Amino acid sequence: MDKKMYSHPLSLRSMQINDSFWKREMELVRKEVIPYQWEALNDRVEGAAPSFAMRNFKVAAKKNQERRERGDAFKEPEYTFRGFETLPEDPEHLEDKFYGFVFQDSDFSKWIEAVGYSLTQHPDPELERIADGAIDIVCAAQQDDGYLDTYYIINGKNHIFTNLKDHHELYCMGHLIEGAVAYYEATGKDKLLKAAARFADYAAAHFGAEEGKCKGYPGHEIAEMALVRLYDVTGEARYLELSKFFIDERGKRPYYFDKEHPEEVKRGHEDDLRYAYNQAHMPVREQDEAVGHSVRAVYLYSGMADIARMTGDESLYAACEKLWDSITKEKMYITGGIGGTHIGEAFSFPYDLPNDTAYAETCASIGLVFFARRMLEICPDAKYADVMELALYNGILSGMALDGKSFFYVNPLEVLPEACHKDERKFHVKPVRQKWFGCACCPPNLARLISSIGAYAFTEKEDTLFVHLYMGSTLKKMVGEREVQVRVDSQMPWDGEVAVTVEAKGTEFVLAMRIPGWCEGAYTLEGAEQDEVSVKDGYLYVKKAWGESDTVKLHFAMPVRLVEADERVREDAGRVAVMRGPVVYCLEAVDNGENLHLLEVEPEAEARVSDGEICRNQVKVVLMEGYRVVDTAKKEGELYHVYKKKERKPVELRFVPYYTWANRGENEMEVWVRV
Amino acid sequence: MDKKMYSHPLSLRSMQINDSFWKREMELVRKEVIPYQWEALNDRVEGAAPSFAMRNFKVAAKKNQERRERGDAFKEPEYTFRGFETLPEDPEHLEDKFYGFVFQDSDFSKWIEAVGYSLTQHPDPELERIADGAIDIVCAAQQDDGYLDTYYIINGKNHIFTNLKDHHELYCMGHLIEGAVAYYEATGKDKLLKAAARFADYAAAHFGAEEGKCKGYPGHEIAEMALVRLYDVTGEARYLELSKFFIDERGKRPYYFDKEHPEEVKRGHEDDLRYAYNQAHMPVREQDEAVGHSVRAVYLYSGMADIARMTGDESLYAACEKLWDSITKEKMYITGGIGGTHIGEAFSFPYDLPNDTAYAETCASIGLVFFARRMLEICPDAKYADVMELALYNGILSGMALDGKSFFYVNPLEVLPEACHKDERKFHVKPVRQKWFGCACCPPNLARLISSIGAYAFTEKEDTLFVHLYMGSTLKKMVGEREVQVRVDSQMPWDGEVAVTVEAKGTEFVLAMRIPGWCEGAYTLEGAEQDEVSVKDGYLYVKKAWGESDTVKLHFAMPVRLVEADERVREDAGRVAVMRGPVVYCLEAVDNGENLHLLEVEPEAEARVSDGEICRNQVKVVLMEGYRVVDTAKKEGELYHVYKKKERKPVELRFVPYYTWANRGENEMEVWVRV
Repeated sequence: MDKKMYSHPLSLRSMQINDSFWKREMELVRKEVIPYQWEALNDRVEGAAPSFAMRNFKVAAKKNQERRERGDAFKEPEYTFRGFETLPEDPEHLEDKFYGFVFQDSDFSKWIEAVGYSLTQHPDPELERIADGAIDIVCAAQQDDGYLDTYYIINGKNHIFTNLKDHHELYCMGHLIEGAVAYYEATGKDKLLKAAARFADYAAAHFGAEEGKCKGYPGHEIAEMALVRLYDVTGEARYLELSKFFIDERGKRPYYFDKEHPEEVKRGHEDDLRYAYNQAHMPVREQDEAVGHSVRAVYLYSGMADIARMTGDESLYAACEKLWDSITKEKMYITGGIGGTHIGEAFSFPYDLPNDTAYAETCASIGLVFFARRMLEICPDAKYADVMELALYNGILSGMALDGKSFFYVNPLEVLPEACHKDERKFHVKPVRQKWFGCACCPPNLARLISSIGAYAFTEKEDTLFVHLYMGSTLKKMVGEREVQVRVDSQMPWDGEVAVTVEAKGTEFVLAMRIPGWCEGAYTLEGAEQDEVSVKDGYLYVKKAWGESDTVKLHFAMPVRLVEADERVREDAGRVAVMRGPVVYCLEAVDNGENLHLLEVEPEAEARVSDGEICRNQVKVVLMEGYRVVDTAKKEGELYHVYKKKERKPVELRFVPYYTWANRGENEMEVWVRV
Repeated sequence: MDKKMYSHPLSLRSMQINDSFWKREMELVRKEVIPYQWEALNDRVEGAAPSFAMRNFKVAAKKNQERRERGDAFKEPEYTFRGFETLPEDPEHLEDKFYGFVFQDSDFSKWIEAVGYSLTQHPDPELERIADGAIDIVCAAQQDDGYLDTYYIINGKNHIFTNLKDHHELYCMGHLIEGAVAYYEATGKDKLLKAAARFADYAAAHFGAEEGKCKGYPGHEIAEMALVRLYDVTGEARYLELSKFFIDERGKRPYYFDKEHPEEVKRGHEDDLRYAYNQAHMPVREQDEAVGHSVRAVYLYSGMADIARMTGDESLYAACEKLWDSITKEKMYITGGIGGTHIGEAFSFPYDLPNDTAYAETCASIGLVFFARRMLEICPDAKYADVMELALYNGILSGMALDGKSFFYVNPLEVLPEACHKDERKFHVKPVRQKWFGCACCPPNLARLISSIGAYAFTEKEDTLFVHLYMGSTLKKMVGEREVQVRVDSQMPWDGEVAVTVEAKGTEFVLAMRIPGWCEGAYTLEGAEQDEVSVKDGYLYVKKAWGESDTVKLHFAMPVRLVEADERVREDAGRVAVMRGPVVYCLEAVDNGENLHLLEVEPEAEARVSDGEICRNQVKVVLMEGYRVVDTAKKEGELYHVYKKKERKPVELRFVPYYTWANRGENEMEVWVRV
């Protein structure tokens, strides 16, 4: 770790993303997802399971009012656990109860976070007015002591922080902080930020290394990284300390979760199964394999990277590096998807990456991007940005339909719709995107990531601007007292041509531009002298005193690549995936006929790249020579017959970008094609 | 259906199996399995979960005694359901309670059935003495009204027949009948037969089409076929009628199980999920796809075939034929295994035959043999015997270790031990055989099948002896008043040479010998004149007046075959299985090194058959030219890299019979090899 290398994201207010690719996605989020989500939060979506989120805040505010008015006379409700999801017995007549998942509050927080980001790119007074109103509702639910989780405010405050493992209180706090910080940074309004900080104060008074304080930590991580953001905007050291405490405490023995859940100890589950799910099976600095629930895992690792950076903790950073390697060298789908098994929504063992039963949750890939950006902040190595880009263009974008109206939770790499309907082992794999989910994590997570995409594309330190992802945009950067303007022109991911124009009027600073791994070192640079240029860890550093308007042009080779997996990935043996630049392609039956498993790619033939349109979206499609295997020895009505060398009928294979799959109806899909 | 075609199994007392292959298996059962099982039934196996079976009978006898002594004053125990398996709270101090699975009684019945068969082949007064003693214990538990299921005798008779769907009472009755008939046929002793008949009388008084009688049917089938056997030995029509009633009633609407389980109706599971598991989703005559729990399914279909034969029911027979096709043309592994998914231990959808997550329960293949033999009884078509033979030599025998001391419940076609240990989706797949199971269905099922193997090899009708399976044996057959002796000499499954010697002293009758499907029509026949021979449905019929000692010699070609699956079986695409005769082969890592998925067979090369020894068992092994694929483009630490055509290192592949796998320690195994 070299503190001189550290960078941090540019403020979204200092940039405008106008990229032809990403602006479209951002507009979908602004026009479709955010308004839809607001309706969902208020239980106004016909045919969708109600969220109850805003309703819960209102009911909690009422309880709050009762507490205030009646003071000591207020009788705390008797707490009874009714399951992780509580639905009304009579949906027509709701009572003043908590409804929905225990973590339902976070629905609001994710929404307000996306709103905040969106406002930086597209000011919208009406949306801001709605958001301010929502914030008023949420803040009214806050207790005088700062506590703010409606599940316990409504169900009985005497059970606060008694089930950290499963009840997501600290998770909700984390999301609240993230939302509050985003909204504050976007609008300068601090009402929600103050509320979040007061909740964090409440938690900081409860948890900590000091004697007498609770030694618990979140069952579902996110507070770790959120508290660092809160520290960033407030400068209050206690938030950093609380985050560090959570990270240091996790996995220590005796296990905190055992004290909380003696019934599970009694049941005698293996330690691994009991704690690995929550990454609490050993102290985090000793962890070197990514295990358990994959979203939780990458949220934790992101927080670990934050704390490693903020505190210069070498051993924590070393753990982050090992965990990064564990994911990216052994447990990541070629789409940037993670989580090989739906059981526990978890990582499977190394190289176990089944395509048809994959979990590869959209949120997990999003969390991987969080982790990657944080590793980049510590050390600008293109390997992190490569994964970030891979996940963004593939396993994350696939989570949202091209019209922004439906979503995947699970992102498989191979789908036979019949199996998803008939085989219970694949019931978690949906062959078409769903409108919304009861457990609505992925759509709002997509919304907050896409709206803040600029914070992943660019980071800066005093004298350097890092361009991790190429996207059309204009940026302002302060170099000392002087403001520098930068414009990026790019047609990524379809074209490898990039131009970066700097208007700096003689100011000296460094422009650090990533050389994508996928170009395999084949690139050209124009607009900089040799002595102004150096290359390190996959970044091109151009250091000079920039003129009125200097343009640096980069060209990255973007041929179609046939990619294969490490031979230990059994599911991909004898198969290749088609890629071009950062985009992974796939076959769909709608283009190639059914029974995709009978198709083979001819690896020696030249691929053709062509303009294509999918649901009115312009994309590049890849056309390749291939074959459809024909069984001439087959006897009708015989399940098995003597082998005969297959005939191969030449066909043209049409590959479409993976993220566009399942936009043209339910059909078969395959990323890994026989070769 | 043509009644003139009907045949029935030869009595085991009229034959002696001395086959070099099967005699060894029978001796294992006699010397290892039956004695071990008796110890298990009496909870005397160190380290194994107790069966509690004999103990439950003794406790029930005690209750029975109390009932008798105290008459009306006997207070029926208060019935409370405590789960499908009831274990003692304090294993050191057992109470007078029912312990074990609800179907624990059947442990005894399966054992006594195997004992009966075994005694026909190897008289053993000591074993018979033990068996008679066990029968005394069981019979003492029988209620004065004939009822005999210890779960309800002990837990409360007021709940008899109230949970047919899950509680296996009629299943236990079925097994009791099977065991009783077998023991009676072997020894002529009828004490247990009478007890079983009285239990059947009790059931016949309770269930039936008549007004006022209960319209239920078994949740787990077997009583259907057992009652037909009881009818066979007793001639009492009510048993046949009860069997027919169960078959006719199944799947009628409104569903009987819904009346029994209103709570499940309320939960609103799909009909399919609720009833298909028990094959009760529609009337059996309308069923044309094998679905649900695969053991239950084939037990039902066996009973259906019995009733179709006994009653000449064409529509029922037509359903049997469709269900047979559904299994063998769409849902059967090449090993004769059935049940593609562990969820519900069930059939998956057509052509969904995953190799590594297979269920393919030993008992299900055994049930398939029951079904096949019954279809053969109706119509001697070699297609049934081919499947019977396939299941026997592969998916069934694989269920038992070569030393008879450990067993597989699940018989996968591909195993990576690491996955079985780490991937919960494969926890049901064990990479090595287990000593015994709490739910001990497969080992005793193996024991009763193997001990009665002759009843599958040979059937007869008045003028014909059918040889379905070739195995060394001597048989006596009555033709009219005259006894004919037949001797079969065979080295199956290793050699295609067969001799059948008939000593008939001028008696005319038909010897019908199956032409195995695997010889693909390549066979020769010696010892019969052309006008004495005809061929129909895969059987060679030799009709003549046989002399003092006439020998017919058959030679079936037995080359090594590379077999492939229907192209709709995705898991087997681009792969072949190696077979010779009826034996399926596999690769094990112990012979071929790890990472079997990197091996390929050279299909053009000649296979070599060689003598091999596995755990002191003489077998034929198959040696084939092949390759180990080597990835020269691989970069250490990169999960994905640009494709390069693989190098192929020539290797000799050593294939061993599938049924012998996992006898040399835990290791990787694969049936379907890349080609």
